[in-house]
Amino acid sequence: MKSRVYLDHNATAPLRTEARTAICAAMDLVGNPSSVHGEGRAAKALIERARAEILEALGAQDCDLVFTSGATEAAALACAGQDLDCAPIEHDAVAFWANPGLGVDADGTVKVETAGRTALQMANSETGIVQDLPQGLAVSDLTQAFGKLPVAFSWTGARIGFVSAHKLGGPKGIGAVVMRRGVDLLAQIRGGGQEMGWRSGTENLIGIAGFAAAAKSAQADLDKGVWARVSEIRNILETALHSASSQTIFVGKDVQRLPNTICAVTPGWRGETQVMQMDLAGFAVSAGSACSSGKVRPSRVLQAMGFSPEDAACALRVSIGPETKEEDALRFAEAWGKAKNRHAARAA
Amino acid sequence: MKSRVYLDHNATAPLRTEARTAICAAMDLVGNPSSVHGEGRAAKALIERARAEILEALGAQDCDLVFTSGATEAAALACAGQDLDCAPIEHDAVAFWANPGLGVDADGTVKVETAGRTALQMANSETGIVQDLPQGLAVSDLTQAFGKLPVAFSWTGARIGFVSAHKLGGPKGIGAVVMRRGVDLLAQIRGGGQEMGWRSGTENLIGIAGFAAAAKSAQADLDKGVWARVSEIRNILETALHSASSQTIFVGKDVQRLPNTICAVTPGWRGETQVMQMDLAGFAVSAGSACSSGKVRPSRVLQAMGFSPEDAACALRVSIGPETKEEDALRFAEAWGKAKNRHAARAA
Repeated sequence: MKSRVYLDHNATAPLRTEARTAICAAMDLVGNPSSVHGEGRAAKALIERARAEILEALGAQDCDLVFTSGATEAAALACAGQDLDCAPIEHDAVAFWANPGLGVDADGTVKVETAGRTALQMANSETGIVQDLPQGLAVSDLTQAFGKLPVAFSWTGARIGFVSAHKLGGPKGIGAVVMRRGVDLLAQIRGGGQEMGWRSGTENLIGIAGFAAAAKSAQADLDKGVWARVSEIRNILETALHSASSQTIFVGKDVQRLPNTICAVTPGWRGETQVMQMDLAGFAVSAGSACSSGKVRPSRVLQAMGFSPEDAACALRVSIGPETKEEDALRFAEAWGKAKNRHAARAA
Repeated sequence: MKSRVYLDHNATAPLRTEARTAICAAMDLVGNPSSVHGEGRAAKALIERARAEILEALGAQDCDLVFTSGATEAAALACAGQDLDCAPIEHDAVAFWANPGLGVDADGTVKVETAGRTALQMANSETGIVQDLPQGLAVSDLTQAFGKLPVAFSWTGARIGFVSAHKLGGPKGIGAVVMRRGVDLLAQIRGGGQEMGWRSGTENLIGIAGFAAAAKSAQADLDKGVWARVSEIRNILETALHSASSQTIFVGKDVQRLPNTICAVTPGWRGETQVMQMDLAGFAVSAGSACSSGKVRPSRVLQAMGFSPEDAACALRVSIGPETKEEDALRFAEAWGKAKNRHAARAA
């Protein structure tokens, strides 16, 4: 029996070995980071080391970082009450707090009007398409980019960014807001005054430990060129998929995008059907962003780029990672091609 | 060299072995719980099993449970925008969202006026004093009681309760709101629509796994009578402390309180001084609730019970747990007595 192949890294990435080791070590720390005794100080020291390591991986050594329970909470902390504009390609966690009225080109580029009151993602979760961040940008969702592209937050034009651990091989349930010194946030969760008052609550110690270890490991991978190889495998896979289905549209193929993402629209073959067929064949892929289970709607991202609702419902996202093997990618392409032929035969 | 003794369980409890095992197992699950493929469904199944297990440990099988990043976020979700009253003995995470105008008796009992618009804790973190929850109570902070006392949420009069994993031997950074069926919450963190729309964001999978395992283990301890022995050791320790310092006041000694907590007020000897001296002697204790590091203020809880600000600044909290040995407790009493004598000699 063949083992399963996980090709849904943009939904969540497998835990990195370094993160697992750091989590296990942090489980031995008993103290509450707010306690003044030795056990508390040891826990606090772990958090401050982790903060510095993540800031370094973000290229944001001169910035502040506030830990949150993930990118969704971080988006609320960064965006709520700020009357921001955004494009409809932003994640729900951003779009909820902003006016999603900005236009989007057919190639996925957002038409920013006033940078200082705009939230703009660095990379899209469904298509992988990368945006140029304008100077003075209010908020940028770095979640999909962090760990897959070199991110130098201090060099971007953004005042506030946010990230999530589990997209780069850290644990789920931990994320952060990063911001230029002097930027203030409107605290959402109040009480004990942790995280400099910006985010109360006893800190997620094992999550923070795992996040920092994963960020360091992801940064090392980037430095070693691991993602160049990921990009090669992605391109080989995309070519194989194209060979299997000439009418499939590969969204973002000709613009800058994440090295690991394929967004394939095959008109007439619904994304959710593809996901289920591929799941049965042993492959984990996605029909869009994994957010609320059971929610099957045509991709808002693709519709903003000009796709019809019908075609936008026929998207498949394949997102690979550093551990994805070329042979597994090709095995996927073969299985997908067969399923495509079966679908075409039934539809005929 | 003697090993350190941890007597600060109300700040945070050591991770239970069962929680560690569950966390390690959950680290192997790669899927996003919102993904529809097999990996996602396995992650989702873990969450739903954990939800049922925690509801059972809470005596709330017929209720809803929403996972949050801890009790502080849960307090905000339960209390924000509800115009609740509370007493000043509530935790900051509750008091921030409520009007802390309710009176408190000298024995720590809160004088509830209108139960349906009141937030009232089940047990106090500093003194361990337990409240009788009136029928129709709006919100109850069960954080300190859960795992130390038998809690049957369905039998309390409360509509909404909330808890934290790390107070009962689960990991930090995970908690929950529990509520009677039909109760609605005002979602704070919005986006992907997880947790039935009440709390968006990819779920903290390892935290949830550890929480459920810890809750089951804590419940088993309660069933086995482990906390009766904890109470015995607490009483032995309290007697020893009393022998060492006859002018020390033991708050809550004569009313119902948690089986593990001692709140000792020694006029003239500041709590923070005691904590530092005991830390140097190898014991982790607290001068009150561990919330925001560096915040050293006379206990609001004790002042509400009628202590002067001077005396309220002289409280020491010792909170033991199932793994606390009688010999270690007595070693603490001896060290504390010596420090007390040194302090008295210097003050004389």
